Amino acid sequence: MRMYDIIAKKRDGGELNKQEIDWFISEYTADNIPDYQASALCMAIFFNGMSEKETALLTAAMRDSGDKVDLSCFGGKTADKHSTGGVGDKTTLIVAPVVASLGGYVAKMSGRGLGHTGGTVDKLESIKGFKTTLSSDEFLNQVKNIGIAVIGQSGNLAPADKKLYALRDVTATVNSIPLIASSIMSKKLAAGTDNIVLDVKVGSGAFMKNLDDAKDLAQAMVDIGYNCGKKVSALITNMDVPLGYAIGNALEVKEAAAVLKGNINSDLAKVCIALASNIISLVKGIDINQSELQVKKALCDGLAYNKFLEWITAQGGDVSVFDDLENFVKAEYNVEVFSEADGYITKMDAEKLGIVSVMLGGGRATKDDEIDFKAGLVLAHKTGDLVKKGEKIATLYSNTVKDMSKAVALFNQAIVVGEQKPLDAPLVYEVVTKDV
Amino acid sequence: MRMYDIIAKKRDGGELNKQEIDWFISEYTADNIPDYQASALCMAIFFNGMSEKETALLTAAMRDSGDKVDLSCFGGKTADKHSTGGVGDKTTLIVAPVVASLGGYVAKMSGRGLGHTGGTVDKLESIKGFKTTLSSDEFLNQVKNIGIAVIGQSGNLAPADKKLYALRDVTATVNSIPLIASSIMSKKLAAGTDNIVLDVKVGSGAFMKNLDDAKDLAQAMVDIGYNCGKKVSALITNMDVPLGYAIGNALEVKEAAAVLKGNINSDLAKVCIALASNIISLVKGIDINQSELQVKKALCDGLAYNKFLEWITAQGGDVSVFDDLENFVKAEYNVEVFSEADGYITKMDAEKLGIVSVMLGGGRATKDDEIDFKAGLVLAHKTGDLVKKGEKIATLYSNTVKDMSKAVALFNQAIVVGEQKPLDAPLVYEVVTKDV
Repeated sequence: MRMYDIIAKKRDGGELNKQEIDWFISEYTADNIPDYQASALCMAIFFNGMSEKETALLTAAMRDSGDKVDLSCFGGKTADKHSTGGVGDKTTLIVAPVVASLGGYVAKMSGRGLGHTGGTVDKLESIKGFKTTLSSDEFLNQVKNIGIAVIGQSGNLAPADKKLYALRDVTATVNSIPLIASSIMSKKLAAGTDNIVLDVKVGSGAFMKNLDDAKDLAQAMVDIGYNCGKKVSALITNMDVPLGYAIGNALEVKEAAAVLKGNINSDLAKVCIALASNIISLVKGIDINQSELQVKKALCDGLAYNKFLEWITAQGGDVSVFDDLENFVKAEYNVEVFSEADGYITKMDAEKLGIVSVMLGGGRATKDDEIDFKAGLVLAHKTGDLVKKGEKIATLYSNTVKDMSKAVALFNQAIVVGEQKPLDAPLVYEVVTKDV
Repeated sequence: MRMYDIIAKKRDGGELNKQEIDWFISEYTADNIPDYQASALCMAIFFNGMSEKETALLTAAMRDSGDKVDLSCFGGKTADKHSTGGVGDKTTLIVAPVVASLGGYVAKMSGRGLGHTGGTVDKLESIKGFKTTLSSDEFLNQVKNIGIAVIGQSGNLAPADKKLYALRDVTATVNSIPLIASSIMSKKLAAGTDNIVLDVKVGSGAFMKNLDDAKDLAQAMVDIGYNCGKKVSALITNMDVPLGYAIGNALEVKEAAAVLKGNINSDLAKVCIALASNIISLVKGIDINQSELQVKKALCDGLAYNKFLEWITAQGGDVSVFDDLENFVKAEYNVEVFSEADGYITKMDAEKLGIVSVMLGGGRATKDDEIDFKAGLVLAHKTGDLVKKGEKIATLYSNTVKDMSKAVALFNQAIVVGEQKPLDAPLVYEVVTKDV
């Protein structure tokens, strides 16, 4: 087989077969195919796309390029949620214990935050003592015993994807639906979970800026899952505004705790209920209305919150922090930000607000930055709210940035106040399932 | 400037500007841009093309990447002919002395043969003593004194093209009109000639297999020439059959000599007259009918042949070979090939016939092969001729291959004899000029 012929075939609109895709991925991972040929192929894929079959084959080849987690002992009841990344997205902290409390097995690897989006691992580490590194045995035993464990990414999962993504990142070939979908799904599939619900974010704070692209990506990932023998559905959710009111690690843990304690009427709670209901529906093979009732009950009667405390304790976290949440989030410096005009908040740029949190120390601009777990911001109002000039819109927190004037200036750029009340945007645009 | 942004701009259909193209070419030539980014850009160009302006800018940047020949002392009267490569193409041997005999200055660098296509330098070297390497001073002085010199490619002309072509060759990005056009023209422009006639071959023996692509390539190259301040026209000529009857170096020199001696009714002569007339029309700024008369006169009254002998002598060639051409081409072994059926020759695959010549020793399969100058073949009939079973179609010659059975078998594959007389195909499909 020759890489030249594979590039030319895709360039001319052909469909690559299993032999060609497997050969490309194994030889590229083994450094036997030069980057200049791989990047030419990626650009040809950017233009000519990939069929559903090709995309599944590419994903499977990347999944099989490294370690794979074996969760077969859980009898098909393992569950995972994956978000494409947003601002203020603390849903894993809520959804994971809800699912575990209802009989799903959550054996989850999560990421750290980079740039304007946060990461679950950082949020968990804001809880004193919480360990995000467990041995493989510790991880699996905890899942067996209490139904839930969440750790940082470990092992050599999908190294082909890692290498190819780094190349795409510098050759302007990231932005291709089949390549994005196969990249995300190859890692998810290597992590071994049987039931996966994807949270595809769309809007100003998300990678996907428009609904059509988000739907295409969601459908591509759901199709991959089914073609690789997993049950997958995807929710397309709104990321034009941050999710919930808090951005920043401890601040988000505090907000998540409120939902787990039964506050199920907030926007954050509604998105979590939708995600958890879809997962439980897949795990148990039950109707979505039935599973939604179970999820709400788990939140309202304390089942989910108890599972949360059990989980945090199991991984070494000090749950006493939840008895005094004010102290848990108390930062050395804080500044209130006020509306500059009378009117409706018509826009809140989620990406800019994520960057405000980074500026305050709550996120990472580069991979090696240290995080100030108590830094971030809490909104007092969101898009659609009527505010008066001088009314508080948010509070900014930091232990390291005393002069927050630059952060305040960026915050003000992110907010638009106008005369017209904006149309209500849905929290969940659509649920994408496999068309079978 | 960042290469990523240049790739993304072209990927999204943008038009690159002079700063971007100049920066890419100079940094890529200096090894400051990795191949994997350059190949991604080439693939994006394959899909999104380049405007006339971009193509001219790319060509100029590659032209300026290395040495340039200065022919300004010839007052705008320098002339060149460039063929995209064919089988049996000995036109330079005829056109160059015709043009020089009529007052054009031919300061030409030619290539060697590779694969099924031959090269002028090899053909000239079949003449005993002929030197295809001259110093820069010798080269220019000879052009000043007798109006013509033809040497092998020398100097570091358009190194950016050389590097980029090598990359395109292994990344399936050769086949893009703006990239082919800029590659050819960057070298031609660096060679310094003011008036250029391009011979764009189309058909089974040519790189361009269909007329529309050939026209697009021709127009792209003509446009580049004018945008870079040169006078250029292009002839689209037929390469479904070999040009003339001889394929192989000495055999082709012999056939060329016959045209120079005044045999102007053959197909080969007609193509040469068309090429030379277009060159003289550009050089002298005269009507094509006028220049055609001058060209035919030069061939018929011995002016061109005398210039040919003067040129060969000036470069050390032994012109006594032209007194005994039978001996000049006499090879140790020869085999006649006969028609296997009665009927019309409906097809002669020019590429296959070129390969037959290579098999006999008359061409190179790889760059380092030695050439047997007397090897090759001479056709007795061509497409459209009526032949009887057992009638001679060709004679094959070699000094090194005694058993020519494999070559004969391939020859027979290249020839189709059928009942229907094929339609006459034009020798010259079209003359492409700048639309001004």
